Amino acid sequence: MSDLTLTIGDKNLSSWSLRPWFLVTQAGIPFTEDNIKLDQLYSRKILNEKSPSGLVPFLTHKRAGGDFVVWDSLAIAEHLNDLFPEKQLWPEDINARAVARSVAAEMHSGFSALRNVWPMMFLREGLAHTTSGGVQKDIDRINELWTLCRKEYGADGDFLFGKFSIADAMYAPVVSRFVTYGPLELSPEASRYRDMMFALPAMKKWGDGARVELAAVG
Amino acid sequence: MSDLTLTIGDKNLSSWSLRPWFLVTQAGIPFTEDNIKLDQLYSRKILNEKSPSGLVPFLTHKRAGGDFVVWDSLAIAEHLNDLFPEKQLWPEDINARAVARSVAAEMHSGFSALRNVWPMMFLREGLAHTTSGGVQKDIDRINELWTLCRKEYGADGDFLFGKFSIADAMYAPVVSRFVTYGPLELSPEASRYRDMMFALPAMKKWGDGARVELAAVG
Repeated sequence: MSDLTLTIGDKNLSSWSLRPWFLVTQAGIPFTEDNIKLDQLYSRKILNEKSPSGLVPFLTHKRAGGDFVVWDSLAIAEHLNDLFPEKQLWPEDINARAVARSVAAEMHSGFSALRNVWPMMFLREGLAHTTSGGVQKDIDRINELWTLCRKEYGADGDFLFGKFSIADAMYAPVVSRFVTYGPLELSPEASRYRDMMFALPAMKKWGDGARVELAAVG
Repeated sequence: MSDLTLTIGDKNLSSWSLRPWFLVTQAGIPFTEDNIKLDQLYSRKILNEKSPSGLVPFLTHKRAGGDFVVWDSLAIAEHLNDLFPEKQLWPEDINARAVARSVAAEMHSGFSALRNVWPMMFLREGLAHTTSGGVQKDIDRINELWTLCRKEYGADGDFLFGKFSIADAMYAPVVSRFVTYGPLELSPEASRYRDMMFALPAMKKWGDGARVELAAVG
């Protein structure tokens, strides 16, 4: 039993849950998983009782000095970065780190068209889709960001900033969307990044979990 | 001339600019201010040339190893926290720090009803207002957060977590809105916090700047 319990929603749908789950799984941080099924009769009641913000994900940190809860995907990521400096969850170089935080924060507060018009459906591929309502502008900006990061900061590995970082975790749900709603016109760098991310064991494990959850519903 | 140049928009209107400006001003971090007037004929062109995201605020960090730009208010705040650990821009206690990050991140990605329906108009007070379209829910949640922070974490000072922190900077534009669109029903703790924040010299200085800008327009 870990000191850290991550509470998440349905794996096929909850894009914000995927971010910290992917982060701890990919980084090899021990954690206990707890699940709240969304859109059930008592989901709202359970969320309001358990989560400070009434939302998933949230992280419960058990410790001798008193347990506490961290909510919001980016706050959880920064908390884990404080707890596990040896994991280097942000790039070590100050320039790359500041840009990685900018890229992660832009995802955190933006791309509302993409998020609203293209809900995450992790297990689906090649769905027909619209790029109206601002979606194309969001795709173009993400394509630009991924390409920039890979070209300018990515020499040391396959991730946005070379080695795996929180920035990759923040874009994991976009990777899923770019598979579900493909094919898209992406740069060679952005396209390779999407394919590399989607093929990771952590992503496969999330997909397996989504299948098990859906089978349980019947 | 400081190594750090903060580029912001119009002081009366640009709520996202107020956050990092208030942070560096209140914390006493030396910086050079640069301004881009929004909603002018060439504003979009200038923003696209100067800002990586096409938005304000952004921070230009000049240094021997190569200049770089940090965009997004929260990424700028975390970068400053890295640069100036002695300023303690986040609470020192790990529990308080994690909650402060949660509170800041909730502001960063949320409260879209409040932000859309109640645009910041820093110099106006007591405007008639609607609380429909989700605004009341946002007000209630902010009231709940401010009250919780002041009661649970605020014993060591007048700010959300006692001493001044990034969390206060993230809510500075809400403080302005809660003056512009008052009176509101807030808890005694939340009401005192709003009044304390709005009376700070840094807030007065921002307001003076807004008046100068508006006078220049004529």
